[in-house]
Amino acid sequence: MTRHLHLNAFLMSTGHHEASWRLPESNPFANTEVEHYRELARIAERAKFDSIFFADSPVLLGDIGRRPAGSLEPTVLLTAIAAATSRIGLIATASTTYNEPFNLARRFASVDHVSGGRAGWNVVTTAGPEAARNFNLSDQPAHAERYERAAEFLEIAFKLWDSWEDGAAIADKAAGVWGDNERVRPIDHLGRHFQVRGPLNLPRAPQGYPLIVQAGSSEDGKGLAARYAEAVFTAQQTLADAQAFYADLKARTSALGRDPDGIKILPGIVPVIGSTETEALALERELDELIKPEYARAQLARTLRVSPDDLPLDQQLPAELPDEDEIEGAKSRYTLIVSLAHREKLTVRELIGRLGGGRGHRTFSGTPEQVADAIQDWFDQGAADGFNIMPAVLPSGLVAFAEHVVPLLQERGLFRREYEGTTLREHYGLARPVGRTSSLQEATA
Amino acid sequence: MTRHLHLNAFLMSTGHHEASWRLPESNPFANTEVEHYRELARIAERAKFDSIFFADSPVLLGDIGRRPAGSLEPTVLLTAIAAATSRIGLIATASTTYNEPFNLARRFASVDHVSGGRAGWNVVTTAGPEAARNFNLSDQPAHAERYERAAEFLEIAFKLWDSWEDGAAIADKAAGVWGDNERVRPIDHLGRHFQVRGPLNLPRAPQGYPLIVQAGSSEDGKGLAARYAEAVFTAQQTLADAQAFYADLKARTSALGRDPDGIKILPGIVPVIGSTETEALALERELDELIKPEYARAQLARTLRVSPDDLPLDQQLPAELPDEDEIEGAKSRYTLIVSLAHREKLTVRELIGRLGGGRGHRTFSGTPEQVADAIQDWFDQGAADGFNIMPAVLPSGLVAFAEHVVPLLQERGLFRREYEGTTLREHYGLARPVGRTSSLQEATA
Repeated sequence: MTRHLHLNAFLMSTGHHEASWRLPESNPFANTEVEHYRELARIAERAKFDSIFFADSPVLLGDIGRRPAGSLEPTVLLTAIAAATSRIGLIATASTTYNEPFNLARRFASVDHVSGGRAGWNVVTTAGPEAARNFNLSDQPAHAERYERAAEFLEIAFKLWDSWEDGAAIADKAAGVWGDNERVRPIDHLGRHFQVRGPLNLPRAPQGYPLIVQAGSSEDGKGLAARYAEAVFTAQQTLADAQAFYADLKARTSALGRDPDGIKILPGIVPVIGSTETEALALERELDELIKPEYARAQLARTLRVSPDDLPLDQQLPAELPDEDEIEGAKSRYTLIVSLAHREKLTVRELIGRLGGGRGHRTFSGTPEQVADAIQDWFDQGAADGFNIMPAVLPSGLVAFAEHVVPLLQERGLFRREYEGTTLREHYGLARPVGRTSSLQEATA
Repeated sequence: MTRHLHLNAFLMSTGHHEASWRLPESNPFANTEVEHYRELARIAERAKFDSIFFADSPVLLGDIGRRPAGSLEPTVLLTAIAAATSRIGLIATASTTYNEPFNLARRFASVDHVSGGRAGWNVVTTAGPEAARNFNLSDQPAHAERYERAAEFLEIAFKLWDSWEDGAAIADKAAGVWGDNERVRPIDHLGRHFQVRGPLNLPRAPQGYPLIVQAGSSEDGKGLAARYAEAVFTAQQTLADAQAFYADLKARTSALGRDPDGIKILPGIVPVIGSTETEALALERELDELIKPEYARAQLARTLRVSPDDLPLDQQLPAELPDEDEIEGAKSRYTLIVSLAHREKLTVRELIGRLGGGRGHRTFSGTPEQVADAIQDWFDQGAADGFNIMPAVLPSGLVAFAEHVVPLLQERGLFRREYEGTTLREHYGLARPVGRTSSLQEATA
């Protein structure tokens, strides 16, 4: 059977390039305008993308001079988009560190109900002390602690989503019995981080569970992904690194007794598309020249946990940097950036240019054919099950990908021409979780 | 100037009467079907209602045999409805006891953005030990403690909603400056219950703040309403009680230095409408006869904190009941039910019939003229600024009210024929909160 690749559109205000908002074509207030996102979703749906996705963190970070700041809460935004679309999956990021499992499990189940089975949840543990300070803490919980809480949070969510059996609402009008009490049961969870009685106050959702997505590539992150994730977003700069990550995560998944096909690995790619390679490179250069380095340097300093003064623009990174082990924040992103700078001996200014497009994700500039080749190359060589498409400029970069790259992928037999199913799980070729069965069904099974 | 009354449609699955789902016309799965609610919202919007509203509690309570159980999370549901409507206000219930201020403030601001300024928040403190057990507690915090936390929660929310000045996003493409850092500031809240640094990660919302709604009628509830609420939902059975509540709450509001016109008081009414009074009473009787008393008795016992065995159906309430002071749950609802039973010397069975329609809210059966008279009577006699319309059966009860009662109220000059504004605050005649001003504006003001 031919493998088909999966495409997710990672949407962000005027695009992933930090200077995209400065282009004449860009609406700099798009970050709070629902119609902007509805239009992007319609473009992605016409191109038969599996899903759209919003990143999120419950904190305002950095300098708001730099680029459009602040964003609509993703479950709200995706619900607003659901009504304007009918098939495309809707993946929202939400934190297990700064939410309660009951509330979040219910919210995702609600999005799944209102969208007819199109909800996905990108599970994050939210790095950084800044977010912690919005939630009664002076610093973030330790990295391992956050991942331990995330695992327990997910276990509770699964139990809550299964707390109603399918068909528990029997609606017998004549007998005056709406629901079957035997088929809706408390979960009585008592763990290290949480105590949750349940059941959920919502019948089981169309997909059973939302699609579980994970994007942390640290050791803890890969552990969580291998155990629970069904799709993984990852930042990989080279084919070799991507192949190693892919093989590692599939092996970890198998080792836990899961089917490695049940976890779809989607590296990020920032495609900058031109009708010629020269045109694409010119657009990339135009964007990079609009970057104001002082903003980017301040963010780089925050990621590296050093002072901006330690990062002169025309020198390489300082020799003395923390080990990944000392980083309690976004560990894998930290390592990726330091490796990139060291491997290519980049100055701070050059590094900033490389990070400006995709914050560590791979930028690829070229013609539609070149972009399609780059995608097929990684897909064929065991580096990816699909891609997280991160247009540098929105909507134009998504339009270019949808109109010029997707048809090539379709012609090559790599990508669907029509949706086959209606739910997000069906797009990714994943089964609906079975859920609980009644004691009667268990007895006769 | 003529006073105009305000109408809110309180929506709930197949209607407020607990047996409404058993009618042949009712869709018993409506509670999880977004299209059902979109259609109700369109009906209410065509009739120029100020708003629609969903109650909520983060717990599944009681016997699911009784009536449609479980519900979509209200901010998700109202967002899904927003796209199908353009003017009507959207009021969601959310708990200050079982949420974090940062998350909830952002969620309501997001709903306000995506709806173009139509969000309202019914602030509840969530009574009962059952909800507490979904949130790591073995029992609920004490009543006074919950209200103290609610006040602090609201103060934080206001600060977060004002943490971005209007116009802080300047989007100067040429200069490469998107936002003005001077106009987006941390809130640095440090209180008894919460520590929240801020700012919010979202520009200021169209309404500034969502409309603040409150529905607790206990002493603590009235105190919170007088201080913060802009609309109040209340259950009142008699004109005299409603007048006393109205006068008391307006006086408390004035005493705090607020304009008493800035708080709109909307008693609930469950209208059962027929083309003749006989027809209306027949519908009410049909519904009451569909009630299964064992379900309702179990709920009554829970409210009264006694055992169902202490409530023989054909006897009056037991003499020994807790004082309101001992109730840590829904205090005012408790007192209303006990008073009603004592005043009218009702048996448990009769009391259950009276509560079956509106759970303590006033049921009124009659012709459209009689319903309009009942509304005008309370409105003219200082008992109400408007009404919380709670149709016994949905959609038919809302259709009857919209098509037959609203035109009468319009003919009498009591209710709008067209929306004058676009935001929920405008419908209720309330100003947009000013928010912070920059130090420059302050200096020149």
